[in-house]
Amino acid sequence: MKSIILAGGSGSRLWPLSRDMYPKQLLSLDKDNSLLQQTFARLNNFSNAHDIVTITNVKHYSDIKLQLNKMSKDNIVIAEPLGKNTAPAIACTLEYFKQNSDNDDMILIVPSDHLIKDIEGFNKTVKAGEKLAQEGYIVTFGVKPTYPEIGYGYIKTLNALETGYKVERFVEKPDLATAKEYLSEGNYYWNGGIFMGKISVFFEEFKKLAPEIYSNLNQLDFSQDTKIQYGIYEKMPSISIDYAIMEKSDKIALVELQSDWNDLGSWQSLYNVKQKNENGNVITGKVITENVKNSFIYSQKELVAVADLEDVVIVETEDAIMACKMDKTQNVKKLYEKLKSQQSDTTKLHKTVFRPWGYYTCMNSGTGYLTKTICVLPKQKLSIQSHNYRSEHWVVLEGRALVVKEDEKFYLNAGDSIDIPVRAKHSLQNPYDEELKIIEVQKGDYISEDDIIRYEDCYGRV
Amino acid sequence: MKSIILAGGSGSRLWPLSRDMYPKQLLSLDKDNSLLQQTFARLNNFSNAHDIVTITNVKHYSDIKLQLNKMSKDNIVIAEPLGKNTAPAIACTLEYFKQNSDNDDMILIVPSDHLIKDIEGFNKTVKAGEKLAQEGYIVTFGVKPTYPEIGYGYIKTLNALETGYKVERFVEKPDLATAKEYLSEGNYYWNGGIFMGKISVFFEEFKKLAPEIYSNLNQLDFSQDTKIQYGIYEKMPSISIDYAIMEKSDKIALVELQSDWNDLGSWQSLYNVKQKNENGNVITGKVITENVKNSFIYSQKELVAVADLEDVVIVETEDAIMACKMDKTQNVKKLYEKLKSQQSDTTKLHKTVFRPWGYYTCMNSGTGYLTKTICVLPKQKLSIQSHNYRSEHWVVLEGRALVVKEDEKFYLNAGDSIDIPVRAKHSLQNPYDEELKIIEVQKGDYISEDDIIRYEDCYGRV
Repeated sequence: MKSIILAGGSGSRLWPLSRDMYPKQLLSLDKDNSLLQQTFARLNNFSNAHDIVTITNVKHYSDIKLQLNKMSKDNIVIAEPLGKNTAPAIACTLEYFKQNSDNDDMILIVPSDHLIKDIEGFNKTVKAGEKLAQEGYIVTFGVKPTYPEIGYGYIKTLNALETGYKVERFVEKPDLATAKEYLSEGNYYWNGGIFMGKISVFFEEFKKLAPEIYSNLNQLDFSQDTKIQYGIYEKMPSISIDYAIMEKSDKIALVELQSDWNDLGSWQSLYNVKQKNENGNVITGKVITENVKNSFIYSQKELVAVADLEDVVIVETEDAIMACKMDKTQNVKKLYEKLKSQQSDTTKLHKTVFRPWGYYTCMNSGTGYLTKTICVLPKQKLSIQSHNYRSEHWVVLEGRALVVKEDEKFYLNAGDSIDIPVRAKHSLQNPYDEELKIIEVQKGDYISEDDIIRYEDCYGRV
Repeated sequence: MKSIILAGGSGSRLWPLSRDMYPKQLLSLDKDNSLLQQTFARLNNFSNAHDIVTITNVKHYSDIKLQLNKMSKDNIVIAEPLGKNTAPAIACTLEYFKQNSDNDDMILIVPSDHLIKDIEGFNKTVKAGEKLAQEGYIVTFGVKPTYPEIGYGYIKTLNALETGYKVERFVEKPDLATAKEYLSEGNYYWNGGIFMGKISVFFEEFKKLAPEIYSNLNQLDFSQDTKIQYGIYEKMPSISIDYAIMEKSDKIALVELQSDWNDLGSWQSLYNVKQKNENGNVITGKVITENVKNSFIYSQKELVAVADLEDVVIVETEDAIMACKMDKTQNVKKLYEKLKSQQSDTTKLHKTVFRPWGYYTCMNSGTGYLTKTICVLPKQKLSIQSHNYRSEHWVVLEGRALVVKEDEKFYLNAGDSIDIPVRAKHSLQNPYDEELKIIEVQKGDYISEDDIIRYEDCYGRV
């Protein structure tokens, strides 16, 4: 079986932990592996690594690649030049499969940022879905509703099929009264956003129901790389797979998802899946509480001290603190939009940025300078690079460094420092077994991540 | 007239803004001047600067001195070697006045951390108090209660005197029912902690009512400096002026305080005196809100984003975030005590520490190193010093530096760096008109502020 991971999600719902440049799927919310990595592992039960294709916006390409490389070097990531919702993303990825194999395989399409813990239940569901998909159905996995949620779309089922149901229709997010009705009627399911079917069936439906997408597919060229060409993608409408195909096709079947499922679409839903302490609190990091109940308190770096509050979410990150009411966490999106309209950096990036070789944290900046702490992991090195507008000054804090500056090599111990002049070719390397930590002081009239010329990079970023 | 400023307060109630080493009186809560500086200015209407004596714990001596020097170079600060509550502090300060002048002057004794905005009303009250004090009364300023507060002590008045009342008794903090009774009876006042009287009268009462304090006073020696000797102070009981004198003396009169008054004893009381916006919020710093009401949101450094909360206090500082319910801000003390018992640094110091020459901020530390950003104000210099256990590496970020290293002088511009080896005599100086900012990387097996030998210091700290 082939698989598609849809990894185009943005970072508004779990802000400030998620960011524009570090969306939810990249976060490790319940264990070491991120949601993306967990999704990859789940699919790896059915598909070989090279048959799992992840599609994401080009701006997340590096981070997605970095995480998936830790799962398997055979992973494939397709980069969208701009966001176009799920229908064009799925169509282009199907086209990628078509160009790379002739088989009319089964395809399983899943979001990258949902939480499913019961792997066995998920596997059973896929098996059940496969039966109907073989018969020519496009199968959607329906989640049995447990309460009248108004934040999800619903799917109304009709008569039973061998391992599922024929779908009557997809319905929009309901109001509370309607949601309660759906719940009592019993034949409504939450739309879990997971689909499977034969590649050929998907193509038929795209051709019939979304020709403005389908007609552009044969121009796509994946022979050189896995990037979708801007000129082609730009012509496609921005539309979800639900609107484009699922709501219109008469080939839709539903199998009930036999595992747990949570879209982690808000801080409240994350709270719901977490282990609570005796006061009903979920506490992460450096936190102290006094008479606090049923709350989610998350500290990334500094101490968070809370007293006499109930049903609140408080999240601390390096550069933003968010506090809100537990049952209104959907309004976090409003805060995010407000900040975005003010062009706040806190919507874009974290202060700490991960790279293939380690990570860096911006510490302080002013006119003409920026300081960072940089951590280079053992046996890793930064690319050979130069900067046109800034000089750099490095001081080793921990570990040892090998610095290549023009044609010379310098071996630095903790406490040593070195200057890298403007335009000098240089590379910071850690050939040792311990982490290397340095302070970098950048000086120059123009200081930006884009002032970089890479000459050689062991992570393929030249 | 002579004046005493009692500046021994601790930092628990307005934590995390106040700290053990940076208590409330040092904070600028409503304007540029701190509460201490405002108190000094208020007294300066009656007393010459050299007749205003501030008494504080020795650990706050430098910061108190630094702030008062900005008001007048003639200020006098007495350092207590340990905390002993107000009675010994007042008695020793009275002894200081006695040793330095023979006059039986009037003395006005005030806390350093209360807010009084109506200077004219305060001045009138002092004039009214002076009349009674001349007649031999110890006069306390009573605050007319406006609601049944249970957090203050009350004073019950008896018959009227010329400009005030004879006091019947001091009463402890009441429960709510009792406080309501007091309020309706009309002859009860809040104890504002401000006293005046003749120095001779105070001495008589100390002699009669607190001989275990009085008997030690004549051993005090202020001929060399303004530090109270440990051996003498240690023998005195730790007792408040209320318990030791006011509740026992039959010479107590009360004048009604004719100004506003707030002890700023909690975040709620600070909220109460602040200007609110249209939603009843008091907002300071980088804050964004969405449907927030009647709350106090304070950001010192990073963004604080709040949605759908009411009646909360959220305070962000560089290393601690505190959130609590508005009407329970007295419980902040509980958080503080809990943290103190865990020896959390956040109860002690701020990350940014002010010095006579500017300030520094600790950025990050690890085994064997500590990094700081240091700002040296124009025309200021750090002492000539050396360290036995650490080397230092400086990189200039902004401005220019004059570095004296052993017998050499180095002139550094932004981007330049210099190494200061272990034990090398050195001084960082800013003889220029702009602020100087540097990064300091300290390296060594033992890194602590106490590893310093000062050879020469223009702020008298050798």
